[in-house]
Amino acid sequence: MNLILLFESDFLAPDRVRLTGRRLAHVTSVHRAAVGDTLVVGLAGGLLGSGVVTSLDPLELRVTLDRQPPPPLPLTLILALPRPKVLNRVIAGATSLGVKQIHLINAWRVEKSYWKSPRLASLEEQCILGLEQARDTILPTITLHRLFRPFIESFAPSGRPLVAHPLASLACPRSVHGEVTLAIGPEGGFIAQEIDSFQRAGFTPVSLGPRILRVETAVPALLSRLF
Amino acid sequence: MNLILLFESDFLAPDRVRLTGRRLAHVTSVHRAAVGDTLVVGLAGGLLGSGVVTSLDPLELRVTLDRQPPPPLPLTLILALPRPKVLNRVIAGATSLGVKQIHLINAWRVEKSYWKSPRLASLEEQCILGLEQARDTILPTITLHRLFRPFIESFAPSGRPLVAHPLASLACPRSVHGEVTLAIGPEGGFIAQEIDSFQRAGFTPVSLGPRILRVETAVPALLSRLF
Repeated sequence: MNLILLFESDFLAPDRVRLTGRRLAHVTSVHRAAVGDTLVVGLAGGLLGSGVVTSLDPLELRVTLDRQPPPPLPLTLILALPRPKVLNRVIAGATSLGVKQIHLINAWRVEKSYWKSPRLASLEEQCILGLEQARDTILPTITLHRLFRPFIESFAPSGRPLVAHPLASLACPRSVHGEVTLAIGPEGGFIAQEIDSFQRAGFTPVSLGPRILRVETAVPALLSRLF
Repeated sequence: MNLILLFESDFLAPDRVRLTGRRLAHVTSVHRAAVGDTLVVGLAGGLLGSGVVTSLDPLELRVTLDRQPPPPLPLTLILALPRPKVLNRVIAGATSLGVKQIHLINAWRVEKSYWKSPRLASLEEQCILGLEQARDTILPTITLHRLFRPFIESFAPSGRPLVAHPLASLACPRSVHGEVTLAIGPEGGFIAQEIDSFQRAGFTPVSLGPRILRVETAVPALLSRLF
């Protein structure tokens, strides 16, 4: 927790917050904060700043919010729904990298059972972990699309639309200027008909090279290469 | 498993292998292979090729090994030993990206208990998973260094030596030519004295920007930016 993310409901006064729950436990047991210590804080959806510990029980901070959060990545990320075991990590990781628009979509190789995962109901928690990790305050928007065809037929990509595809002949571009929409397939990849649908919707297939990467490795590798 | 990794002990004849254990289970239950199917195979330390299923019980393949594995990354990776929960993923991920030299080192913020993790004894399994994922055959060499000072005082970096440090004023370079040695710190980062030691050993501190990333996100992000 490199930042304590604050919510409006934590404020007792404009410059005074009380921490509860997971943040209280973390500041007490990991930071081992004492009265007078300064912690990095940020208001969800707002500014970054610092919080001075004014009391330990209850745990209260006097906060100053005076800095902009880091700039967002100009990227819309479309992900074939990963298996539940990796979903949390992928969402927290993408959030820590600064992604603000995530579409989780169906695909032929997404197992139907993945859509029943209880983790789909708690994605905001993973976004919060990603923001705390990266010292950011702006939560991403995550949209679920349980049907591939209606999604691809109605989706209007922002900026340059790319679909990661190990068989593509074009290499993924580097250090792009402007917005990108990037689609990443499931384990085993998008099938040929899905790649065709992406191409009809204006997407260009691009490859990261001969190595096939897991989605949790591919997301940071592709984003770091693009921006 | 995008590639079935073969070992010398699997060969019944120069072009005939029998699969057992985890690979047998995977080919039977996930690939659902039938006689006549062709699978991507590779010999550990050797060539890639294809294997045609000639019988199911026992599972035997007729193999042709005729292609070089993908080129390795010209990188030596120095990692402060991650906590056991993420160690496996980081090693498999780095292997899938093509890293062939990994040094796991101690640092002030590495908890002593991490060095007692049973996972340290099974890192080769994670390397094999990474090779199977990325369709590579060359296992990385992993070296453990339980003491920071003797390591940094005797280590001779290959190529350009960099140490990732969120407070560095220099941005991590992009699309580097030639070899790089890259050091990545523990959660919370290397302490100032450790960064000093790296600098005395010729390393340049470089930053990925204001976002602090988890090691499993930082490794692919840094490697993808460097190469």
